[in-house]
Amino acid sequence: MINLGDIRTELLECQKRIQPFIHRTPIHTSTQINALCNAEVYFKCENFQRAGAYKMRGALNAIMQLNKDQKKGGVVTHSSGNFAQALSLAAKSQGINAFIVMPDNAPIVKKEAVKFYGGTIVESGSAIADREAAAEKIRTQTGATFIHPSNDYQVILGQATASMELLDQVSELDYIVGPVGGGGLISGACLAAKYFSSNCKVIGVEPTNVDDAYRSLKSGKIEYNSSTNTIADGLKTHLGDINFPIIKENIDQIITVTETEIIDAMRFIWERMKLVVEPSSAVALAGVLKQKDLFKTQKVGILISGGNVDLKRLPF
Amino acid sequence: MINLGDIRTELLECQKRIQPFIHRTPIHTSTQINALCNAEVYFKCENFQRAGAYKMRGALNAIMQLNKDQKKGGVVTHSSGNFAQALSLAAKSQGINAFIVMPDNAPIVKKEAVKFYGGTIVESGSAIADREAAAEKIRTQTGATFIHPSNDYQVILGQATASMELLDQVSELDYIVGPVGGGGLISGACLAAKYFSSNCKVIGVEPTNVDDAYRSLKSGKIEYNSSTNTIADGLKTHLGDINFPIIKENIDQIITVTETEIIDAMRFIWERMKLVVEPSSAVALAGVLKQKDLFKTQKVGILISGGNVDLKRLPF
Repeated sequence: MINLGDIRTELLECQKRIQPFIHRTPIHTSTQINALCNAEVYFKCENFQRAGAYKMRGALNAIMQLNKDQKKGGVVTHSSGNFAQALSLAAKSQGINAFIVMPDNAPIVKKEAVKFYGGTIVESGSAIADREAAAEKIRTQTGATFIHPSNDYQVILGQATASMELLDQVSELDYIVGPVGGGGLISGACLAAKYFSSNCKVIGVEPTNVDDAYRSLKSGKIEYNSSTNTIADGLKTHLGDINFPIIKENIDQIITVTETEIIDAMRFIWERMKLVVEPSSAVALAGVLKQKDLFKTQKVGILISGGNVDLKRLPF
Repeated sequence: MINLGDIRTELLECQKRIQPFIHRTPIHTSTQINALCNAEVYFKCENFQRAGAYKMRGALNAIMQLNKDQKKGGVVTHSSGNFAQALSLAAKSQGINAFIVMPDNAPIVKKEAVKFYGGTIVESGSAIADREAAAEKIRTQTGATFIHPSNDYQVILGQATASMELLDQVSELDYIVGPVGGGGLISGACLAAKYFSSNCKVIGVEPTNVDDAYRSLKSGKIEYNSSTNTIADGLKTHLGDINFPIIKENIDQIITVTETEIIDAMRFIWERMKLVVEPSSAVALAGVLKQKDLFKTQKVGILISGGNVDLKRLPF
């Protein structure tokens, strides 16, 4: 499937393809963080991305790579998170239908967001088997193409563009640090660093409570979480067979952080940097603060993945 | 005191003077707000300013205009809000002392912020007479120069630079809309629009519950608030004899908004634009949303005054 020689070109073509429909998000810095870490830390603010998260990039690229007939049938995914909103908005921007399978007990605020961005919600039971069955039914009934939120090569290329921009906005980065959930963002970062930097390392950060990727790297095969008790709701999922090989080959290491460390980092970003970010985004800063020695005197880019939070349920 | 012919030069000199010590804050936009208002709305994000608010500009200019002897004595003010933090940080950046008179019942989080930025807290009773007496005592004892948070010409010039930047960042603005508290920000906007635009009007927005400026414009003299029951804690104060003449002469109008309208606007900015802003900042957007017809098809700049909020006490 993946032709290694062509990846650099594929990334550039992907970037060119989606550019008209996404924001080139800004870089923010914090004097206090820099002093605290004795490093230069650059925050890539994908919370300002359309639909509030980097997911828009991958969703858009996957949709734009469909052929005419496929586009006619629309797209389908199962997600109750940022990818649901992103796929809805990306589909709308290309004039096609998006069917979003969501568990019937999904929060109303998330359902409303999907509707707001133009997606069609299909309710299912909350078990993963129910959700997959519902997506498969839509696929066969409507001819919609299934798009996985993170384990899809076109999605990964799209997510890589966040790191490509970061590398373009900040010269000679030593590290890109990002959260690890399903693996789309971090595998994209790996590709971007490999093909668009001379020496930039990629480090993933994960909540200790859902450290499946940390364990996967150790064991060499995809590991799963037996429980998903973390505030970082975007990071509960496991890696996939398309992104794991990319991550395994290219990532420098994965740092794990506690729930308290996540909340402290999130509070810092809100209070001091005045950015609304979701807990999953704070995970990356938590990792940098935890391993200050590693990043000392280095140029570090942090991927702020998104800003979609329920203001009624903040951890402060 | 004010030589009208020289104001444009004074503004330019002020801008040049403080520039090395402040951030040129970014402009953010929202597709949704633009669609909702059928207008082009530009948010000047002073929540990203140093110390979290535009107040840094005025504090810095006032301090930098002191002579050598005055600087030796330091500065003193009474404030429990953003000006306290701004004056502390501005003083620190110039290597001088700042004494901040705060009521003994001021929230600990605000006292800590002042200490964090290097200010020396002087506690007083909470009545305004107590605070003024404490400031006066410091002044005579230490030789510190008293700097008023909003009714000081050098402070007004400093605050004007926020609007000067906005006019430079967005060409041909039709309106600048900002919150009205003590009058420093909005009188600065009036000067900036007068001397650096061809036809930009300035509109102030005020909570209905503390509509002293609205009434002052009507009566032609400075009015006061009998109660200060508003979530917009930065806007409880009244105008002063230095800024009121500038406002009276130059402002287009003042719009008043309810507490619900303020909270709704604040929620929109947090949820959709991913910006941490304080209630006082949301007041300006609330005014634009309330008077949509007025701003239809116009280019509107909104002054987001700051982002210093207590995350434990959000209105959502």
